[in-house]
Amino acid sequence: MNENVTLSLSEVRELSESILMDNGFNQDHAHSITDIIYTNQLGDCHSHGLYRLFMCTESIQSGRANGAAKPTVVDAGPAVIRTNANDGISLLALHESLPLLIEKTKKNGISALAINNCFHFSALWPEVEKLSEAGLAAMAMLPSHAWVAPAGGTRGTLGTNPFAFSWPRQGKAPFTFDFATSQFARGEIELYRRANKPLPEGVAIDKDGNPTTDPEAAMAGAMLTFGAHKGSALSIMIELLAGPLIDDLTSKESMEAAEGRLEAPYHGEIIIAFDPNLFSGGKVDTNDARAERLFADILDQGARLPSQRRQAASERNLARNAVDIPRALYEDLLKLRK
Amino acid sequence: MNENVTLSLSEVRELSESILMDNGFNQDHAHSITDIIYTNQLGDCHSHGLYRLFMCTESIQSGRANGAAKPTVVDAGPAVIRTNANDGISLLALHESLPLLIEKTKKNGISALAINNCFHFSALWPEVEKLSEAGLAAMAMLPSHAWVAPAGGTRGTLGTNPFAFSWPRQGKAPFTFDFATSQFARGEIELYRRANKPLPEGVAIDKDGNPTTDPEAAMAGAMLTFGAHKGSALSIMIELLAGPLIDDLTSKESMEAAEGRLEAPYHGEIIIAFDPNLFSGGKVDTNDARAERLFADILDQGARLPSQRRQAASERNLARNAVDIPRALYEDLLKLRK
Repeated sequence: MNENVTLSLSEVRELSESILMDNGFNQDHAHSITDIIYTNQLGDCHSHGLYRLFMCTESIQSGRANGAAKPTVVDAGPAVIRTNANDGISLLALHESLPLLIEKTKKNGISALAINNCFHFSALWPEVEKLSEAGLAAMAMLPSHAWVAPAGGTRGTLGTNPFAFSWPRQGKAPFTFDFATSQFARGEIELYRRANKPLPEGVAIDKDGNPTTDPEAAMAGAMLTFGAHKGSALSIMIELLAGPLIDDLTSKESMEAAEGRLEAPYHGEIIIAFDPNLFSGGKVDTNDARAERLFADILDQGARLPSQRRQAASERNLARNAVDIPRALYEDLLKLRK
Repeated sequence: MNENVTLSLSEVRELSESILMDNGFNQDHAHSITDIIYTNQLGDCHSHGLYRLFMCTESIQSGRANGAAKPTVVDAGPAVIRTNANDGISLLALHESLPLLIEKTKKNGISALAINNCFHFSALWPEVEKLSEAGLAAMAMLPSHAWVAPAGGTRGTLGTNPFAFSWPRQGKAPFTFDFATSQFARGEIELYRRANKPLPEGVAIDKDGNPTTDPEAAMAGAMLTFGAHKGSALSIMIELLAGPLIDDLTSKESMEAAEGRLEAPYHGEIIIAFDPNLFSGGKVDTNDARAERLFADILDQGARLPSQRRQAASERNLARNAVDIPRALYEDLLKLRK
């Protein structure tokens, strides 16, 4: 039952684009979504690769996402861009805003992109890595749905609120991380439920706010943040910066508006970019070497850098010009073709 | 032995300023340092209140900190200020940079202040709260000394690397948090050692990289970050943004340069400020109400907001125009008068 199929890299792109266009996305959206799905699949990030095509098509089928939405890129201030995704998937809005974000960051030293009114299904790491490919450092944050209790709380108020960061390295893949501020991702709880396995302690509470290791009770209750009160504080910060700061929804507002429909969460996103050249007074080489000494000191003691495993998978798959995906997933994907 | 003395609020300021000036700080430094020490003591934050005067005077006595250093505020780019503290305590550099940081943030939407070449002893929350008093949101980060192991590592590479955030609330004290990315603060391990009490699990490793609950072995080994690999990733981000990004030292470089001297850690700091007015397209009231609904939902379930206890202490102490400090601390402080 663990049988895989091997797809060439161009087959991955073709499969993704054709499914998206068969299901109501125009070419621009199909292209920007496929770019990110491909990048995830290349790194063997199965949870955010081709598998996410289901969420994309569901977002159209729910009648809320617009597969032909044209984003409006607004130059809102010297160091701020506000892009209205106009109810499209976030990625075309990102794609159309990146050149201006890079230009503003190199001019100002720091700048930010707020994306409003978007459906968001994708991992954040490819978004911040795009900025590091332009020599910039970047962080990205967004809310989701109110499945997560604050520290000391009894019910869902916060989202799984991911936080991603990337740092450019000369001649190397960037230093990048991307994590949910919830202890577990929502999908992980679901996997435990399907496998009928108890959750670890500290991951969830039941509907009365009591600790539980029962995945069923956890789905009816709430998840907990990572890192107790510190992770909870960070998650609240993400609600504020990717919500009220940019005039967009909190996780609770987003969840209420979705009314239980199967679709990607709908809300805003904030990306902040930093230019090491301007911040360091032009001393990029000296400080690249300083960052490399930090990384070397981490690796030297047997610890891993956050994206090491994924970056190795990408290199391996690029070299063989192929990826493996489960046959069952492949067959389900083919059913989305029309 | 738990006897306290009660000092009026003006006595707190006078005691702090006179000790600083008796020990080699000029009036500008004494004033900017006292401002922060007073704010901490008012909130009953004893660890960062008058107690920190010892670290200030030690930093002068070690021969490295300059009590008369004049900061150089450099307008480094449209949205970036680089202030050279010129080997002074960080707080005068901060004080002299804040008006320009607020001006740049309101003009650009986002901007950043890098403070270089400073000795830093203070909690970060009063720094970000100053920006929220001007209606801005803000985050602040800095390295320290390499006492903390990365996730999966065996020795100190990272600092205790604090992260602080503040969000302005209309007619209320800001939402603020400030935490070390290490599981414990360095001083907490020392308190366990003095009390001859075992540490909780997951706080430290010994010099061979094995888990330990022995405070003595922990002091000789390394501390762990909060939140396992996620906290470790955040701590590395803080090293990068408050180190190589701004052409300043990592925690390891700072520790090596200190050569074991008793003094505040010497390195850089970064503060990032956001203007809710520009980011929200002028919809500050709507989004203040949205943030208040989030806070109300957290409080309604019996959870606390991060600074609630401190803010209540500040109000209480302001109303009675006094604070209590341990008599032993007071007597030790008097010995610093000359």
